[in-house]
Amino acid sequence: MHDILVDGIAPATVSPRDRGLAYGDGVFRTLRCQEGRLLAWPRHYRKLQADCAVLGLDCPSEARWLADIAQLAPTTAAIKLTVTRGVGARGYACDPAAPVTRLVQAGPLPDYSAVQRQGARVRLCDWLLGSQPGLAGVKHLNRLDQVMARREWQDPTIFDGLMRNGRDELVEGVISNVFLLRGDCLLTHPLTDCGVAGVLRELVLEVAAAQGLQVLLQAFDLTALTHADALLLSNSLAGVLPVAQCGSMSWHDFRIAERLNLAISRIAFEESLPCSPA
Amino acid sequence: MHDILVDGIAPATVSPRDRGLAYGDGVFRTLRCQEGRLLAWPRHYRKLQADCAVLGLDCPSEARWLADIAQLAPTTAAIKLTVTRGVGARGYACDPAAPVTRLVQAGPLPDYSAVQRQGARVRLCDWLLGSQPGLAGVKHLNRLDQVMARREWQDPTIFDGLMRNGRDELVEGVISNVFLLRGDCLLTHPLTDCGVAGVLRELVLEVAAAQGLQVLLQAFDLTALTHADALLLSNSLAGVLPVAQCGSMSWHDFRIAERLNLAISRIAFEESLPCSPA
Repeated sequence: MHDILVDGIAPATVSPRDRGLAYGDGVFRTLRCQEGRLLAWPRHYRKLQADCAVLGLDCPSEARWLADIAQLAPTTAAIKLTVTRGVGARGYACDPAAPVTRLVQAGPLPDYSAVQRQGARVRLCDWLLGSQPGLAGVKHLNRLDQVMARREWQDPTIFDGLMRNGRDELVEGVISNVFLLRGDCLLTHPLTDCGVAGVLRELVLEVAAAQGLQVLLQAFDLTALTHADALLLSNSLAGVLPVAQCGSMSWHDFRIAERLNLAISRIAFEESLPCSPA
Repeated sequence: MHDILVDGIAPATVSPRDRGLAYGDGVFRTLRCQEGRLLAWPRHYRKLQADCAVLGLDCPSEARWLADIAQLAPTTAAIKLTVTRGVGARGYACDPAAPVTRLVQAGPLPDYSAVQRQGARVRLCDWLLGSQPGLAGVKHLNRLDQVMARREWQDPTIFDGLMRNGRDELVEGVISNVFLLRGDCLLTHPLTDCGVAGVLRELVLEVAAAQGLQVLLQAFDLTALTHADALLLSNSLAGVLPVAQCGSMSWHDFRIAERLNLAISRIAFEESLPCSPA
């Protein structure tokens, strides 16, 4: 069984002239496949379309993605979808007629249950996020900030690293969005000049508001962490995770993470599609 | 005859799991091959090593690159060298033991003689360069800024687009470094939070100083353009080019570009290596 397709084909190779490789000229999504269902599929597809639109890429149709995924026929997996601007000549100018490259990958889904239960250990990254308002929120293939930040630690018990921008604001984790709870107020960075606006972030904001929390898109610094009642991480594979520890700071109230997670899981399943052909 | 090698092998394909594709996790160089010589090779190799060091990549040895290039045996070509962090699993964490991917490409060398003679037409890009001091100067594979800026025009008579940062400073061109001459003073942006510090930029600064110009690494804005005696572009394929026109502004004194170009060509040939096996 293959676990990766390029333009629907396996065994999969990519042209060395692919603009994804040359320039990081593309976008991607990672989503959870569980019990043969693609969780929150319509949201992921909408986000992929939106990110493609920012870069001016033709987003492959839903039918194409679903056919590719059905070919891989995963039951429980981390699914990664990538679109690049396809094969190009040397130079930044692109041929608008060149077809995009479509890449589908099904990998093992890590088991997050222990982190869910015990809370995540995180660290503060030294590497600061760069600023580019034109691409803020987009999950594009220019991910050197995350690569550089992730190189800072080897300790496998550290789940994620928190990243600041040049103004010392806490923006996101290397692999997650970050939320701070204080009282009944849930804060997250507005991601106006960097950061990835993930699908789980969108769901957290929706569900938190529905549960009566006051949701604020507002920057906060490290000092705010010391006053936080809870710190939460979200990503599409792990869902919502409570943070237990960051350096000398620790948090013990995981109820809000549990509550949000439960509500989000329900929506993600309701909005799921099957992974296999009908 | 092949024109591209991956890890010394043709026909060349790249793994869809290559971190160059997944994250733009790599660096590259473009250099001029002329009359069977790799111009300014030691400088290009040093810059490649320096850029690899910033990302923590093992730079392949000079011998490997030269063997690859000799296999392609170009006489006149644009040579592109790429190093990526190699094939990886999903996720930003990298295996330090994984070998890098080495990519060598020989393409047609554009003819720049007309632009050299008549001066380049350039435009001002709307897309602003992002800021990331940690990667400033490095020619890495995260090049979406250049891709987005290059998408702004189709007119083939426009040679390059000038790019500003968020502080309205003129930083560089999409494919070149930019220099402003006023009196005997040559200014170029210090590239402290974005931009590529190209090999030709280094040569321009050296040669200009040797010719008695006062060389300043200093930011300047568009107003400074209107007072400039000359505007110059540099890149490793085209050498030093005078700018003839940018919107309603125009310049007519191309002598400084010619003089710098002549001196730089001499050095680039003196410091060249043969492209073919000895």
